[in-house]
Amino acid sequence: MKRAVVLLSGGIDSTTTLAIAIAEDYETYALSFDYGQRHQIETDAARRVASSLGAKEHRIAKIDMRIFGGSALTDDVDVPKQRSETEIAHGIPITYIPARNTIFLAYALALAEVIPAADIFIGVNAIDYSGYPDCRPEFIQAFENLANVGTKAGVEGRRFQIHTPLIKLSKAEIIRKAGELGVDLSLTHSCYDPTPDGLACGECDSCLLRLKGFREARVKDPIRYAQK
Amino acid sequence: MKRAVVLLSGGIDSTTTLAIAIAEDYETYALSFDYGQRHQIETDAARRVASSLGAKEHRIAKIDMRIFGGSALTDDVDVPKQRSETEIAHGIPITYIPARNTIFLAYALALAEVIPAADIFIGVNAIDYSGYPDCRPEFIQAFENLANVGTKAGVEGRRFQIHTPLIKLSKAEIIRKAGELGVDLSLTHSCYDPTPDGLACGECDSCLLRLKGFREARVKDPIRYAQK
Repeated sequence: MKRAVVLLSGGIDSTTTLAIAIAEDYETYALSFDYGQRHQIETDAARRVASSLGAKEHRIAKIDMRIFGGSALTDDVDVPKQRSETEIAHGIPITYIPARNTIFLAYALALAEVIPAADIFIGVNAIDYSGYPDCRPEFIQAFENLANVGTKAGVEGRRFQIHTPLIKLSKAEIIRKAGELGVDLSLTHSCYDPTPDGLACGECDSCLLRLKGFREARVKDPIRYAQK
Repeated sequence: MKRAVVLLSGGIDSTTTLAIAIAEDYETYALSFDYGQRHQIETDAARRVASSLGAKEHRIAKIDMRIFGGSALTDDVDVPKQRSETEIAHGIPITYIPARNTIFLAYALALAEVIPAADIFIGVNAIDYSGYPDCRPEFIQAFENLANVGTKAGVEGRRFQIHTPLIKLSKAEIIRKAGELGVDLSLTHSCYDPTPDGLACGECDSCLLRLKGFREARVKDPIRYAQK
C-alpha cells in the first residue's frame, strides 16, 4: 500500500485533503503542529478528524513559533474582525505566519523520508488565500524541487511529489467535495479566535471565509458559533 | 547595519561562518537548535561561541526530531567509530538526519523574515560532507529559490540570499580561515558521541574529520579528547 504524509490542521481544507488521500488509496500519516497556538482547540480538532477518517497514524510535532513573533496568530495582538471580502481577498493578512508552510513541509518531508513515503498532501488553496505567498503553485513547485535535491531518498531516486488537490478550488467547491466524500465537517475547526469553550467567533477572516463557503455551497455549517 | 541570520551548531564550520558574517559587517542573529540531541553539549558550545564572537542575538529553537527517528544522532543506535577516510567520504552516513538542513533553513527563513534580514549564513561544506545531499550547492540554490517565492518579504521584493562561505573549502582551509579571523576554536564542539563530562571521543566521523583537518592545517586542536 502506498503511503502519504498529510498535513492536517483540523480545518475544512486539510480535512478534505486527508479524505481525498484516503479515497486515492493512500495509507495516510497525518501530521499536525502544536505551534504555540493560543489554545489546543486546533490540535483537538485534528485528532478527531484523523481518527474519524481512519488515518493510519497521527503525529503532532510541537514547535515553538513564538521565537519568531511577527503574526497575529502567534503574537498577542488582536485578530482582525468583520473584514469585508475585498479586505480579506487582497494583500497578505496579518495572520500570515512567516515561512509557516515551509516549516510544515520541511517536517512532512522528514517524516516522508523515514516512513518511507514519496507523497505529501497539503490543503493549500490559491483562491481564497491568494494573499499567502506559500499557498501558491510556484511555492509548491519550488518545495518539490527542494525535496528532490535535498534528501537522501530524493538523490537515490525516490520522486517526492507534493499533492495540492484543493489548490484551484473555491471554499464552496471544497465543502461540496467534502460532502461527496462523506466527511463530517462538524469535527473541523477554522476559527482564529474561538471562545474559551471552543465556539467559533464567526467574525474573523477564517470564520467569514468558512461561512461564505457554506452559503455558496448551499450547505448548512454544522459547527456552533458564539452567540452575539 | 545589515542583518543576517547565522545557523550555529557550535562546531568549527558554523563558528567560522559566524566569524565570517561578522567580519563582513553583518549584525548577526545566531540560531541554534535543541533537537533532541543526546546531550546539551552542542547547544552549550553554540552559546559560548555566539557570546565570544559578539553575535547581536542568539536564539535556540527547541524542536523534537525524535518523532522522525531514522538517524544515529536522534535514535538510540551506536555512532560508528574509527571509520576510514574512504568510508567517511563515500555514501550517505547513518548520522544523516532526514531533511535537517531543510528544517533548519526554514526556521532561519522565518526568523529572517521578521527581524528583518535578507541574508542567511549556513556553514555547509560540500567537500568533507559530500555524502549529505543537503550540503550541496544544488540544495542551497533550491532553498534560495523557495525563500524568494514562499515568503511575504520575498514576494514584496526583498531578495533572500543563502550564504555558504565554506562550501568549497576543505576542513584544513576552514581551520586556517578561523585562525585568520582570530576565532577561538577551543570553544567549539564537534563530537557525535562525547563522554558524560563533555570530552570528544576522537573516534566518530566528526572527530576524525576534525583531527584530520587540524593535522592538514598544521595547527594543534585546542580541545581535549577522552583518554584511551
